[in-house]
Amino acid sequence: AGRFRASEHQHVRYNPLRDDWVLVSAHRVKRPWQGQLEKPPPEDVPRWDPKNPLCPGATRANGEVNPNYEGTFVFPNDFPALQPDAPEPDDSDHPLFRAAPARGVCKVMCFHPWSDLTLPLMSLPEIRAVIDAWAELATELGASYPWVQIFENKGAMMGCSNPHPHCQVWASSFLPNEARLEDQTQRQHLSQHGVPMLLEYAEQEACRKERLVVENADWLVVVPYWATWPYQTLLLPRRHVCRLQDLSDSEKDNLASIMQRLLIKYDNLFEVSFPYSMGWHGAPTGPYLQEDCRHWQLHAHYYPPLLRSATVRKFMVGYEMLAQAQRDLTPEQAAERLRSLPEVHYKKRAE
Amino acid sequence: AGRFRASEHQHVRYNPLRDDWVLVSAHRVKRPWQGQLEKPPPEDVPRWDPKNPLCPGATRANGEVNPNYEGTFVFPNDFPALQPDAPEPDDSDHPLFRAAPARGVCKVMCFHPWSDLTLPLMSLPEIRAVIDAWAELATELGASYPWVQIFENKGAMMGCSNPHPHCQVWASSFLPNEARLEDQTQRQHLSQHGVPMLLEYAEQEACRKERLVVENADWLVVVPYWATWPYQTLLLPRRHVCRLQDLSDSEKDNLASIMQRLLIKYDNLFEVSFPYSMGWHGAPTGPYLQEDCRHWQLHAHYYPPLLRSATVRKFMVGYEMLAQAQRDLTPEQAAERLRSLPEVHYKKRAE
Ligand SMILES: O=P(O)(O)O[C@H]1O[C@H](CO)[C@@H](O)[C@H](O)[C@H]1O
Ligand SMILES: O=P(O)(O)O[C@H]1O[C@H](CO)[C@@H](O)[C@H](O)[C@H]1O
Repeated sequence: AGRFRASEHQHVRYNPLRDDWVLVSAHRVKRPWQGQLEKPPPEDVPRWDPKNPLCPGATRANGEVNPNYEGTFVFPNDFPALQPDAPEPDDSDHPLFRAAPARGVCKVMCFHPWSDLTLPLMSLPEIRAVIDAWAELATELGASYPWVQIFENKGAMMGCSNPHPHCQVWASSFLPNEARLEDQTQRQHLSQHGVPMLLEYAEQEACRKERLVVENADWLVVVPYWATWPYQTLLLPRRHVCRLQDLSDSEKDNLASIMQRLLIKYDNLFEVSFPYSMGWHGAPTGPYLQEDCRHWQLHAHYYPPLLRSATVRKFMVGYEMLAQAQRDLTPEQAAERLRSLPEVHYKKRAE
Repeated sequence: AGRFRASEHQHVRYNPLRDDWVLVSAHRVKRPWQGQLEKPPPEDVPRWDPKNPLCPGATRANGEVNPNYEGTFVFPNDFPALQPDAPEPDDSDHPLFRAAPARGVCKVMCFHPWSDLTLPLMSLPEIRAVIDAWAELATELGASYPWVQIFENKGAMMGCSNPHPHCQVWASSFLPNEARLEDQTQRQHLSQHGVPMLLEYAEQEACRKERLVVENADWLVVVPYWATWPYQTLLLPRRHVCRLQDLSDSEKDNLASIMQRLLIKYDNLFEVSFPYSMGWHGAPTGPYLQEDCRHWQLHAHYYPPLLRSATVRKFMVGYEMLAQAQRDLTPEQAAERLRSLPEVHYKKRAE
């Protein structure tokens, strides 16, 4: 049957962080697409809209008026999925009907006072301020909550209902599924191999280079070997760092820089404000602050849905939901494409 | 804090089939929605379109001409993610970079010669013919392949690129993630409790009734206790049945009937052709036909995205991708809503 080429021949790849597999069928990108087209994001978002509850000076759902903030701005989510207290469910009467208590808080963080900006269009000091605010929230909420999930849904395609640049922070009294899974796999890797999984992985990718997108003295971004979304990336520190709040000043500066470079490339890929969900994973907090968490390595996942153009996305549906994720180009092809893109934002090129 | 009520108070529920949890925050359905609106499905699909490659007599991408089929019609997917032979990847040189061979076949099955029909609008004998064709394919492909995934993506929202009523069948040389997971959890349940998990679960739900949607002599449909999608359902036989091909004639008739009743309710919920991904899970095949698979119970999952109306869906994004699925109404509320809907299709009411 000839020599194996990943870009031609289907195969499966193992994801050691989630202990599962992805089906890579890169030949499939050749098929024509006659399905749903996505609406490109609006280009005419007003910089300030008194009716937008995320804007400085606007009134929120609960009647509160936002301050005239000039940097980042954190406030409680007016429709929180997690609240600090709720009566606890009764003990389960059957092993197939198990409920457990859940407590927490949900916050929203605006990145900037202007609604017509996104992270890739913000300056380095402005991005650095976001990182500082993340680290502060991680410390503050992590003092008591075991898990503080910082995440950004960018773009209407990713369920984001407000164009103002913002992210969310949901802190919970429990370890969510993904946290539990990554805790187990990383713990096992350290005990088997004597080195944290993602520290070793970053070192390997720094040498192998074929999945590298951008790198600097403290960080690297790769399309992981086991990526499921077409242009999914993993942002990793080079040093062993357990949590966001453990980053040094210069690591935060370099983080702002590498985020900016990655996000500009993302926007340049299809010359559109690139939709994604992203979020941070690090060692658990609250009671876990007292425990040995050396198996953990801080990282951010970027999960962007676009596949072929600004309007054609990858659908993770039937086979993916019922069997296994499947991808239509190799991680190496995606990395090469991203690597080759300019680091000047397409909207700033004319300037 | 008062007495616990699932519809008012957030909590987490355990999914014994996937060994994970879902966050239930039913109070959140009260929040207003200002995000993306979905396009309702087209109402003007022509019954026959010679340019649609799924129609009788049409020419497909590979140049072949479809027969003038009158019932179901199965043909090879012209852009298959899985092919019967491909060179195998080299042995992995590092535990974090593991690839493995994948072989298989992908087929498409048209349910009916008309493009303007969907399953809920088809007659019982027509639905029964689909079930027979499923069982045949499961037998045929299951003779050699360990896993035969039958699935339907219905609606453009679910990545379906052709309105003609059809499903897909992807058979693989490996057990996909979901199959592996359900194999483990069901195996453990049988060994711990002496009864197949989903057989016990169906018996429990038949007594408890609050999550029942429809039932008949052989089958029941419930919104599972651990549902993640708003109106997700689980279709279960009452008898212990390992695989689709093990169903008796009368069980297949009753399956046609319960599918029709469920799908009519689904369409009636928002008076729109209800989008979903659905698929069958049963004991693995190929080499597993020789093994003890009594821990398995045949079942179908329905994963529909709509939440509030024909145009407002649930987004499984940031928190869901990075932490844990979250739902905005309880499974009991969803079941009650579905139960209360008429069993006559809204398009046929005028007749
Ligand atoms: O039906 P299609 O066009 O082959 O493809 C659809 O279903 C496949 C299997 O779930 C997915 O991989 C695709 O992303 C989706 O668009
Ligand atoms: O940003 P929102 O409107 O709170 O909500 C969005 O993100 C949440 C967390 O990922 C999801 O549960 C919602 O489905 C999505 O629409």
